[in-house]
Amino acid sequence: MRGWMTDKKSYIPPVKLGEVMRGVGIGVVVESKSDKFKAGEYVFGTLGWQQYVAINANEIKIKIQNIPGISLTSWLGPLGSTGLTAYFGLLEIGKPKPGQTVVVSGAAGGVGQVVGQIAKLKGCKTVGIAGSDKKCEMLIQRYGYDAAINYKTTPNLVDALTKYCPKGIDVYFDNVGGPILDAALARINRGARVVLCGGISQYDSDPSKMQGPKNYLQLVVTSSTMQGFIVMDFMSQWTQAITELIGWMKEGKINFGEHVVNGIEEAPKALPMLFTGENEGKLIVKISEPVKPKL
Amino acid sequence: MRGWMTDKKSYIPPVKLGEVMRGVGIGVVVESKSDKFKAGEYVFGTLGWQQYVAINANEIKIKIQNIPGISLTSWLGPLGSTGLTAYFGLLEIGKPKPGQTVVVSGAAGGVGQVVGQIAKLKGCKTVGIAGSDKKCEMLIQRYGYDAAINYKTTPNLVDALTKYCPKGIDVYFDNVGGPILDAALARINRGARVVLCGGISQYDSDPSKMQGPKNYLQLVVTSSTMQGFIVMDFMSQWTQAITELIGWMKEGKINFGEHVVNGIEEAPKALPMLFTGENEGKLIVKISEPVKPKL
Repeated sequence: MRGWMTDKKSYIPPVKLGEVMRGVGIGVVVESKSDKFKAGEYVFGTLGWQQYVAINANEIKIKIQNIPGISLTSWLGPLGSTGLTAYFGLLEIGKPKPGQTVVVSGAAGGVGQVVGQIAKLKGCKTVGIAGSDKKCEMLIQRYGYDAAINYKTTPNLVDALTKYCPKGIDVYFDNVGGPILDAALARINRGARVVLCGGISQYDSDPSKMQGPKNYLQLVVTSSTMQGFIVMDFMSQWTQAITELIGWMKEGKINFGEHVVNGIEEAPKALPMLFTGENEGKLIVKISEPVKPKL
Repeated sequence: MRGWMTDKKSYIPPVKLGEVMRGVGIGVVVESKSDKFKAGEYVFGTLGWQQYVAINANEIKIKIQNIPGISLTSWLGPLGSTGLTAYFGLLEIGKPKPGQTVVVSGAAGGVGQVVGQIAKLKGCKTVGIAGSDKKCEMLIQRYGYDAAINYKTTPNLVDALTKYCPKGIDVYFDNVGGPILDAALARINRGARVVLCGGISQYDSDPSKMQGPKNYLQLVVTSSTMQGFIVMDFMSQWTQAITELIGWMKEGKINFGEHVVNGIEEAPKALPMLFTGENEGKLIVKISEPVKPKL
């Protein structure tokens, strides 16, 4: 979202001044002229920061299923864009193998929490990096990370990664960039995969102050890959991924941590929380009380 | 070589103080106790900065063939480690497709000159970046580049790349790092491959002054890959590659530009030329006059 608010060329056009802010969300169908949807059904899509939207049925890619034990907001978390980002980023770009070490930054966030849990399901050792002791406790207790590093209180991140990843890092899933990315690069193994999901530490920077990964030449000496992606790259596989994620959630293998802020008027205050790390878990703005589902 | 002279963990151990400096070269067999080699034969290997070496026959991977029209020094160029680096970096990591745009930095050097010519053979548009007008002329006249950019006299590299790559960059083969890498990242297409071969602008830096690619997040918005490699990764395919390269050379499709410095005592002055860009073509130190080959 921060990127969409600049003039820079990106994977989709910027949001223009005066336009409704773009955002994905869950909505309930109030009225429908399409055969695909009927009133009362819940859908997931790019609905925008608004209480009501008139939208073409073809633009809605996901109808929300009413599944016992799966909360509605799960469709914004493990079953939504952050969960799918975690799924495809880890499995398609990170390609973890059993026994390998997977390190995740922003590990308590919407994406990071799911990455760690899927990596664990795939037989990996998981190390999460987050910005508070409380989040680190969540990483271990709730998301099954083998180890957690609080980057705000750790004097030397490279030393910490050396300690918790004695066999080096095979997959590094990066949500933050900056010094944390550099520390991870210092510890990658031969043939490692650095999954570039985001770089929250850099999004708000003055372009002249942007900090690139100083240790990027580690990619050369270890013959490693750093690869970016967006979740849209895998749209044709979303349904299959959601089915698999639902299965894991039903088995209790994917826990979901959310941080809900109430009221559309709070949305402009919520977004900056992602930059300070104030949110604990997937950040959700509840625009208004949902109409009772009639599913 | 510059990297081997630091204490940093790399793909091979550093050269110790007092040891013979490591280096690949061509030598003539003076005496052999192995069935594999006999006196008078020429070989390529990690022979070191020295006039004579006693070496195990198993450590010599390549015997030099006496082929009409192929100079001995070609085995240090297109058929040696720089040529093989170009071949595998471009074809295995860069994966160029016909009609795509390939940009190469350090394009007049030992690696870059071969990258451009192979890319051309594969039906790509090629744009080379080098540090003098003379080199740029060589790029066009000798190595068949479609366009050449003198980065030392070009006020805005991004604008120059926009001009010469109107369809964007599909493969960027980087030998230099720094601001040139950043300019290329600003112009990559969706699904681009950034081949990290080297970063000569950074090798000699104080670690605190290392400059990472500020535009690395372009990899995210374009779903692109930045991948490092070393030529040893492809050792099992060297023979096949050399055969193909010899074929291209015989057909006159790969030209070779070399820069020869005479005398082992000049070697310590030659290495820094790679950092200033003083050499024009593959830099070779001729340690001593070769014994006449008896091939």
